[in-house]
Amino acid sequence: MTRALTLTPLPAIPEVRPGDDLAALVQRGLDAAGLTLRDHDILVLAQKVVSKAEGRFARLEDVTPSERARELARRTHKDPRLVELILRESREVLRAVPGVLIVEHRLGFVCANAGIDRSNVPPQAEPGQWVLLLPVDPDASAARLRAALEAASGARLGVLIIDSHGRAWRLGTVGMTIGLSGLPALVDLRGRADRHGYVLRVTQVAVADELAAAASLMMGQAAEGTPIVHVRGFPYPLAEGRLADLLRPRERDLFR
Amino acid sequence: MTRALTLTPLPAIPEVRPGDDLAALVQRGLDAAGLTLRDHDILVLAQKVVSKAEGRFARLEDVTPSERARELARRTHKDPRLVELILRESREVLRAVPGVLIVEHRLGFVCANAGIDRSNVPPQAEPGQWVLLLPVDPDASAARLRAALEAASGARLGVLIIDSHGRAWRLGTVGMTIGLSGLPALVDLRGRADRHGYVLRVTQVAVADELAAAASLMMGQAAEGTPIVHVRGFPYPLAEGRLADLLRPRERDLFR
Repeated sequence: MTRALTLTPLPAIPEVRPGDDLAALVQRGLDAAGLTLRDHDILVLAQKVVSKAEGRFARLEDVTPSERARELARRTHKDPRLVELILRESREVLRAVPGVLIVEHRLGFVCANAGIDRSNVPPQAEPGQWVLLLPVDPDASAARLRAALEAASGARLGVLIIDSHGRAWRLGTVGMTIGLSGLPALVDLRGRADRHGYVLRVTQVAVADELAAAASLMMGQAAEGTPIVHVRGFPYPLAEGRLADLLRPRERDLFR
Repeated sequence: MTRALTLTPLPAIPEVRPGDDLAALVQRGLDAAGLTLRDHDILVLAQKVVSKAEGRFARLEDVTPSERARELARRTHKDPRLVELILRESREVLRAVPGVLIVEHRLGFVCANAGIDRSNVPPQAEPGQWVLLLPVDPDASAARLRAALEAASGARLGVLIIDSHGRAWRLGTVGMTIGLSGLPALVDLRGRADRHGYVLRVTQVAVADELAAAASLMMGQAAEGTPIVHVRGFPYPLAEGRLADLLRPRERDLFR
């Protein structure tokens, strides 16, 4: 039996504005793609659309940088007001060198610039330089969207919110989970026997991150990209995963 | 226009033995799945099948550990003979603590245990404890398989060889590129304008790693898994990528 995984980027997603109904946007994209939701389908959303719908904009002109922000801005050659916002969104600074500011985000993952985005932020009614912060609680954002889509469709669904992260050791960004609802984050294969009867010792697979990467591939990154991808054929049972499942405890992390 | 990405795990792949013809194995799986190769299709193979076909087995009984291997074995609680093989396959040890040995592999990427695998290694004709090393040159392995499949099919193809790696900061393994031929490793979106006219400053996307993660999701990890996945709908032009494209230069790596 061959079951395929199919990822369909949803067309016709307009620019998202604060207060927009994400479930309605998803439905519009599904309609344009000719898709009807079924049990076990997953919707993957780029962080940007969720953050924009939640109004997570900040205006640099409104930010007064602290002394610590000014000092880090000098070290990293970044705008001190942007660095102030990054610090407010972070628990800890891991690295600060020219052009690079790597932090532990308040949500617990490690990323550059606390995920704050200056590109693709639309001009607001008020003039100024705007940036976009990550959603306040992406697991909760995913759960709300899932509930709305499940109520409308009657199907059991998963929702995954992703962002593009750089990595240690390797070049290039990959899509990474920042929030989820209704699908597993990790699948634990420890203790299962392989086909020669050996017991696999450590095989916890980050299936949500694998799906995040897959969906990111189909989103593109610039003008022609689409921020919502429909997934059919996820090969594991749906379950209640959380972002926290994917976060390596600090005391077990050898690369801080 | 909606173009979907479809990943189909190929059924009917038997246990692979040294000297097996990988192109014939792939063809057998494609036939079983009812697929015919077309231009722009990509085949993704788990490292294990490539290594087995190339006969990359080693027997622990044949290995004499060096003093350095014995010392690292004490620190990591690992078999000194296994540690000796890991050192022979590595350029540098990054971390060694109980249960964990992280190295820079001679191929240039950072991974645990130099990618040497003790699970799912079949019993050989000779008794003993066998392990499986990574292919000697996975880019070359991918190029050879691609040439054979292109010659047989007449289609322009990509071949990607992947392994499961742990990550800094996050739990769980994800599929990662260890060799490729005929598809890009990185796609450089730097300098393109987003839809508001901002110029994206740094957006190099590790598309091969995103595809590696996607395919890994469909391979599973244990008895029921399949090691070869067919991909249709890769959203970028095919190009000549190399593993080296994905490796962050040591001097630009802040997390060593």
